[in-house]
Amino acid sequence: MIKITIIGSGNVAQHLIDAFAKSNTIEIIQVFSRSQKQIPPLLDSDKITNDWNALKEADLYIIAVSDDAIASVSSQLPFENRLVVHTSGSAPLSSLSDKNHKGVFYPLQTFTKGKPIDFKTIPFCLETQFENDYALLEKVASSISDNVYKIDSHQRKALHVAAVFVNNFTNYLYQLGNDICQENHVPFDILKPLILETAEKLLTLSPKDAQTGPAKRNDISTIEAHESFLSNENQSTIYKILTQSIQNHGKKL
Amino acid sequence: MIKITIIGSGNVAQHLIDAFAKSNTIEIIQVFSRSQKQIPPLLDSDKITNDWNALKEADLYIIAVSDDAIASVSSQLPFENRLVVHTSGSAPLSSLSDKNHKGVFYPLQTFTKGKPIDFKTIPFCLETQFENDYALLEKVASSISDNVYKIDSHQRKALHVAAVFVNNFTNYLYQLGNDICQENHVPFDILKPLILETAEKLLTLSPKDAQTGPAKRNDISTIEAHESFLSNENQSTIYKILTQSIQNHGKKL
Repeated sequence: MIKITIIGSGNVAQHLIDAFAKSNTIEIIQVFSRSQKQIPPLLDSDKITNDWNALKEADLYIIAVSDDAIASVSSQLPFENRLVVHTSGSAPLSSLSDKNHKGVFYPLQTFTKGKPIDFKTIPFCLETQFENDYALLEKVASSISDNVYKIDSHQRKALHVAAVFVNNFTNYLYQLGNDICQENHVPFDILKPLILETAEKLLTLSPKDAQTGPAKRNDISTIEAHESFLSNENQSTIYKILTQSIQNHGKKL
Repeated sequence: MIKITIIGSGNVAQHLIDAFAKSNTIEIIQVFSRSQKQIPPLLDSDKITNDWNALKEADLYIIAVSDDAIASVSSQLPFENRLVVHTSGSAPLSSLSDKNHKGVFYPLQTFTKGKPIDFKTIPFCLETQFENDYALLEKVASSISDNVYKIDSHQRKALHVAAVFVNNFTNYLYQLGNDICQENHVPFDILKPLILETAEKLLTLSPKDAQTGPAKRNDISTIEAHESFLSNENQSTIYKILTQSIQNHGKKL
């Protein structure tokens, strides 16, 4: 059994604890948590500590805390030369303290509190400071996921920015769609099958081939009708920018 | 059996023909198509015509052609006072010729050639010029879908604009994400589970509650890191506009 310790009790930490608890090759020997109440029921309560000096020897320490706490947490670890990884898409490897072997264990997924998720499909992006730490990290990731990738810091930065486009910004477009429905007394539910199908289409088509709509086919009269329909300045600005961008996309690249 | 005639042989027409062919209450008596080769195998070839004067009497004529062909097609119909509907989200009721009873039969979904789709989940947005035509149209829609809505022209316009945001624009963000991956030698496949989960989250959370990311939590250092990472002007412009818009969203509404 590979012994791991999880540091943190937030959303990502809890989902990881749930996932590892079901694994046959990984044993969570401890969880460091300042607040005990948030730990999932799958974990024995005597494995939880809030005392740095009570941390036992493990094969791997996974720091699952917010980006700006990584440096401080990793520097407080009372040991050296062990493998310590963070789970962040945007924090560099260098945000971890130099006294331990560094690595990244980044599950590229959005986690919702209380919503179970199939870990097997989650891509894990792994990086280690030292080549011979990689095999262990890969074994740990493969125990819960079928999608494990070796991703260096530059690639991870690219993925994190791309994830902002396809997750944060996409969700924001859903929010604008919701606002437009509310303002015009139409249930937003009507759009949900379209939203799902738009995402599912990518399993068979590239986004370029899946692109449709008035901007793509340069349908000026529909574009003008939409622009005159939108009285909200923010919606109108975004409509114009994205429409122009789709119209110019092939040319600019 | 309700007798219907489909006019058109494009993507929407073909999906409708497939769906009605499986219905027990609807009979497709004819399909008007200029080109015979595109008609699905489910239909007897003797039901296909390209002669306006060969059109038989039906309870409902569904014009499934491109928006700019609706007026011309509806004016060429060689009969009067029958129920004729179009399937467009953006064309007004008035685009249909005055000589027949007008209506709209708008399936709010994106159809991909060759990709089967579960019609039961597709929202149908219905409108009729005369109140007593509505029951028939509703019966036809309900024979293939569980999501039938009475939607007036103004509401349909709002839905169509909102659909551009959640479908066309969202897919374009997927495309930008794909570009960023390609430019940095990372497989776009890594982002697909995130894309699916972002859409599926809406089944349990509102887009407002599902919003996460650096813009939402006003994480200036991550935003600056992303902006300096993006060297492509188009990507950078869209990143800035959407980030600012998310930051200001609560304030502006």
